[in-house]
Amino acid sequence: MSDAERAVVAGCPDWVEQVVDWGATYETDHQKMRLAIELARQNVLRGTGGPFGAAVFEMASGTLVSVGVNSVVRLKNSTLHAEMLAIMLAQQRVGSYTLLRSELPPHELVSSCDPCAMCLGAVLWSGVRRLLAGADRADACALDFDEGPIFPESYAYLSARGVAITRGALRDEAVAILELYRRQGGPIYNA
Amino acid sequence: MSDAERAVVAGCPDWVEQVVDWGATYETDHQKMRLAIELARQNVLRGTGGPFGAAVFEMASGTLVSVGVNSVVRLKNSTLHAEMLAIMLAQQRVGSYTLLRSELPPHELVSSCDPCAMCLGAVLWSGVRRLLAGADRADACALDFDEGPIFPESYAYLSARGVAITRGALRDEAVAILELYRRQGGPIYNA
Repeated sequence: MSDAERAVVAGCPDWVEQVVDWGATYETDHQKMRLAIELARQNVLRGTGGPFGAAVFEMASGTLVSVGVNSVVRLKNSTLHAEMLAIMLAQQRVGSYTLLRSELPPHELVSSCDPCAMCLGAVLWSGVRRLLAGADRADACALDFDEGPIFPESYAYLSARGVAITRGALRDEAVAILELYRRQGGPIYNA
Repeated sequence: MSDAERAVVAGCPDWVEQVVDWGATYETDHQKMRLAIELARQNVLRGTGGPFGAAVFEMASGTLVSVGVNSVVRLKNSTLHAEMLAIMLAQQRVGSYTLLRSELPPHELVSSCDPCAMCLGAVLWSGVRRLLAGADRADACALDFDEGPIFPESYAYLSARGVAITRGALRDEAVAILELYRRQGGPIYNA
């Protein structure tokens, strides 16, 4: 195999640097969620992927650590949901396979939509201490996106392991991006 | 952010090219599973990661498409389980975000151990039509690896969507790699 076949490169579209203010502090849940939703909106408007955005923050300071946008179609990779990219980039930035280290402040993942089964598992391994989600999985399913095998016990499993979960933040604004994607006729890549 | 912070590079260790015979055909479940187990064994012996290996094959021909080994610690990335790497590399090789396309033959994922919750979700999105697993999730949990929120309904969910699941193939040989890892004192990165 060639080197190109032996390694995958996963990153955000270039426009992210124009949209994201890395120096800002995101103090409230709404501020954090608005960034995730704006990433989702720009991903739709610029035609670079599905209607989902995510970001990792230091919880206490509101410092932005990483962002992700859905990149499945753009990068021809079904694993590159917004949450996965944000987690991978956050871990690369801090230089650790887990964000849960005594020398690191607690981190949280903010996603414009309830994570799918893959991403919910990834949240557990990532070391974030909190998940904040916007649109409901039912909203994604209404668009014919499948969310995979998630059950009430799935959330309880994470909670029992110290991951706080808050869902439904700015749900209406998050759902509006799903609707925007539908109006644009964007592909449902995992129907 | 620098370019290095904006993109993640995910690939297998170099030794994979010495161990894997890309030209061979893997006709039986045992032949396919032995490759996944050998990848897991080499990953432990060479100190490049956790005791897990995986591969994607074309089901009918037994042609090998991609391989993956657990790379969490080596690449400081909690998402890079063996199955995730194998799926990403397979999709890159065929140039599609799904292996389920009418112009492609059906594919299967072979893993030396039951996939965790993240990887099981990824199996669903990958487009493989079959999952073949070796060691049981209970075997991994006995080593203090957490497998995440997986329930009997999780497997049923995939089956209902056309993913055939066969578990317990060469389980004893697969479990022996977990034991080898324990004897070597390898880190449990998601305990």
